[in-house]
Amino acid sequence: MLAGDLAQSFATVTPDSDALAAVRAMASARQPGLIVCDADGRPYTVLPGSQVLRFLMPDYLQDNPTLARALDEGASDELCRQLENVTVRDLLPHPRELDELPVVDRDATALEVAAVMARMHTPVVAVVDGEGPAGRVVGAITASRLLDHLLAPRAPR
Amino acid sequence: MLAGDLAQSFATVTPDSDALAAVRAMASARQPGLIVCDADGRPYTVLPGSQVLRFLMPDYLQDNPTLARALDEGASDELCRQLENVTVRDLLPHPRELDELPVVDRDATALEVAAVMARMHTPVVAVVDGEGPAGRVVGAITASRLLDHLLAPRAPR
Repeated sequence: MLAGDLAQSFATVTPDSDALAAVRAMASARQPGLIVCDADGRPYTVLPGSQVLRFLMPDYLQDNPTLARALDEGASDELCRQLENVTVRDLLPHPRELDELPVVDRDATALEVAAVMARMHTPVVAVVDGEGPAGRVVGAITASRLLDHLLAPRAPR
Repeated sequence: MLAGDLAQSFATVTPDSDALAAVRAMASARQPGLIVCDADGRPYTVLPGSQVLRFLMPDYLQDNPTLARALDEGASDELCRQLENVTVRDLLPHPRELDELPVVDRDATALEVAAVMARMHTPVVAVVDGEGPAGRVVGAITASRLLDHLLAPRAPR
């Protein structure tokens, strides 16, 4: 089975997308992150959910999470309002942390996808249709989806 | 809402669990990883799916994933058979990569969970009932579940 067959539809956004809408869509679909594409549909980066939380949470809370206990729901709402009127670009780490992207061609084999995912320690890879950086994203494969396929009992041949 | 309310049931395993059964259960439930507990139910570590793939894929394929294209289904089965007759302990990186664990108390607030997840860059935290290292795992919270809660539109108060 090839990457194109394993890929599941996955919401993609651009750096100019509204951040709150993008993160809400990711969260309600229980996706582990956002696939960010440029305006031509070419993959730009993958933004994991934990990176969104890094944007929301001030450093002093990340350094000492128990301090968050003292904050009430109003403070929580205030932190989340940081996503209003900003774009996905504002959520991205600067500079982009990885030059290499977790991307595979739709013709990649399952083992090739596994090698990319293992190499890059990523929970999700984007699947593109078309060569290298010119490819457009057609879906994504999570580590659990891939392992489910690789480890499925097969009828004896 | 507290961590105990946000937590969803999540299969836990011990270092002595059968690796193939554990990974199959994780994959079929589409969980992003395995929560590994010791025999007393205390959290030991969280093993992401990509780490399982690192165990399966030889270094030369991780270094050059396109080489995997030359391998057929038989080679794929052979790689996956590495999970047979081994335990979860064999999948764990040596030494354990993190001294700190992505674990929160069931009484932690949502913001505290967010701070831990942001700090540790993890897609999932374990929720324990009981103090610190003596706590038993009662479930887990993913980044998307947490963001879905934090960003839900609230009725005006």
